[in-house]
Amino acid sequence: MPQNKQILLDNRPEGEAVASNFKLVVSDTPALRDGQVLVRHHFLSLDPYMRGRMNDAKSYAVPQAVGETMGGGTVGEVVESNNAKFAVGDKVVGMGGWQQYSVVDADLPGALRKVDTTHIPLSAYLGAVGMPGVTAWYGLVKIIEPKAGETMVVSAATGAVGSAFAALSKARGCRTVGIAGGPDKCKYAVDELGFDACIDYKLHQDAASLSKALKEACPNGIDGHFENVGGMVLDAVLSRMNAFGRIAVCGMIAGYNGAPLPITYPALILISRLKLQGFIVTEHLEVWPEALKELGTLVATGKLKPRESIAIGLEAAPEAFLGLLKGRNFGKQLVKLS
Amino acid sequence: MPQNKQILLDNRPEGEAVASNFKLVVSDTPALRDGQVLVRHHFLSLDPYMRGRMNDAKSYAVPQAVGETMGGGTVGEVVESNNAKFAVGDKVVGMGGWQQYSVVDADLPGALRKVDTTHIPLSAYLGAVGMPGVTAWYGLVKIIEPKAGETMVVSAATGAVGSAFAALSKARGCRTVGIAGGPDKCKYAVDELGFDACIDYKLHQDAASLSKALKEACPNGIDGHFENVGGMVLDAVLSRMNAFGRIAVCGMIAGYNGAPLPITYPALILISRLKLQGFIVTEHLEVWPEALKELGTLVATGKLKPRESIAIGLEAAPEAFLGLLKGRNFGKQLVKLS
Repeated sequence: MPQNKQILLDNRPEGEAVASNFKLVVSDTPALRDGQVLVRHHFLSLDPYMRGRMNDAKSYAVPQAVGETMGGGTVGEVVESNNAKFAVGDKVVGMGGWQQYSVVDADLPGALRKVDTTHIPLSAYLGAVGMPGVTAWYGLVKIIEPKAGETMVVSAATGAVGSAFAALSKARGCRTVGIAGGPDKCKYAVDELGFDACIDYKLHQDAASLSKALKEACPNGIDGHFENVGGMVLDAVLSRMNAFGRIAVCGMIAGYNGAPLPITYPALILISRLKLQGFIVTEHLEVWPEALKELGTLVATGKLKPRESIAIGLEAAPEAFLGLLKGRNFGKQLVKLS
Repeated sequence: MPQNKQILLDNRPEGEAVASNFKLVVSDTPALRDGQVLVRHHFLSLDPYMRGRMNDAKSYAVPQAVGETMGGGTVGEVVESNNAKFAVGDKVVGMGGWQQYSVVDADLPGALRKVDTTHIPLSAYLGAVGMPGVTAWYGLVKIIEPKAGETMVVSAATGAVGSAFAALSKARGCRTVGIAGGPDKCKYAVDELGFDACIDYKLHQDAASLSKALKEACPNGIDGHFENVGGMVLDAVLSRMNAFGRIAVCGMIAGYNGAPLPITYPALILISRLKLQGFIVTEHLEVWPEALKELGTLVATGKLKPRESIAIGLEAAPEAFLGLLKGRNFGKQLVKLS
């Protein structure tokens, strides 16, 4: 059996997550039992939700156990199979975690899914045609319910969710405005991802300043917003929401370190008759087939060209993850494992 | 024509509203034109939303104009009629404002509605069988969508909205918990209004303390919440919401004076996958007939016995209104005008 490098959660963060929260170990992959397959991972996905799971706090997910391999989405290929439904060489997507190989009980529903890489690159199944893409789809289609001609805003615009959101929103005839950090990301959002405008939040010290920029970029106000960040961005967007606006709350990345990030003027929820709704896309598996079909078509036809930020080798995962939490990635953050 | 005492908005509040923002004047009622009726008001309704209209700020309603009669709901009787649909002696409900008489263009849709006082007292049409009742109905039925066995919480529990909410929630088989200020109100909520429990927020200095009390009163967590207040109460309730909980945002009474009342941990919206939705009941006229029918039946059959707090004479309206904003009223605040 091959040797398997793994990264464990060694201890929980106190405040900001740091590299020493993680620990690299090497172990042998166990022999396969009936129904199991051995998957060699090509890519590991790094996502902001992982930070939430590192805390031992009430959250939507069971906390990541200390001393165990960090969880995470992976794509790879079957290298050994004790399961009639999977053959060696099959390309698969699953939740293999921060390691080079995983042993999967492939009969468990949702544990492993074969994917077609004819028109869609394997890595896209961790981004645009995977959980981040479906996340954008669910927030836009099921919570925001956009109408053609409305104005949509998304924060973390050049990330995996934001870029999918833009393609989906434009396909529905909406003015689509991004918020991102830095001029390069903003230029990329407009030039490559199809955003009508993109605001560099780093140019703004407070919500009032960002709100002014939003007013320029959204002359008709904001009807739908996909919130990935929280804090100042959400405050600024709230101040520009039109009556009956809808906000899909997907992330509060800025708050994971424990610092409270209040909504400063919640009275706007009433004044503008807004709907704010939080969701976790893995609780809505019923929409995945429809969402993945649309997202796959957008990627295969070149209408959604998500950018990837690829760290090389499992050892690079912790630093890449910490950079993601600080917005240092540019596009979907992946780790290449083989 | 009879003389008509009126209370105008004389100037806008700076911070807290004060009695000198208002001005009493006396004028003659004008002669009726075609289609108009003259209504002598029996009761004026005082409601928290009026405070919002006193500001010249972006809000859901056009601001109350300075120098004009304060707007407000009224019930009374027709004392003169130039309209074939209304006869002298008809009992009517309308938006007559802070004055003894109003001249109404009775053909305008929604301007004046005849009501039946056989089984329902006239004043109830300003409370349980009027806008406050429909407000409770809309928030509960259309936003919260309760299921039997769930737990519902309402702040300002003994007010017109809160008492209607309790009757409607109990009728749907929900555990119903109130939040009110002081032991008398809490006892009344449980003994007379049918609440299963009522928490005295004045016993709690902060959201953490109130949250503990909510845990005791809501052993299965909170599934639906009707927010009339904001601030500490909303923070405490958010901390006890179950996954997929729904919050109808109807009032932010504590915030009207301009002091920001943030939501301290909006990440809970995501963590607990909550829906928060603001609404204004006058924008949903399509539900009024259904809502008023249920509310009228609850009152006529004694299942909803709303308490009223009645100030005597138009001159008493400003102080009664300022008291309402501070929670000094006990039940639906009315002013008896004749």
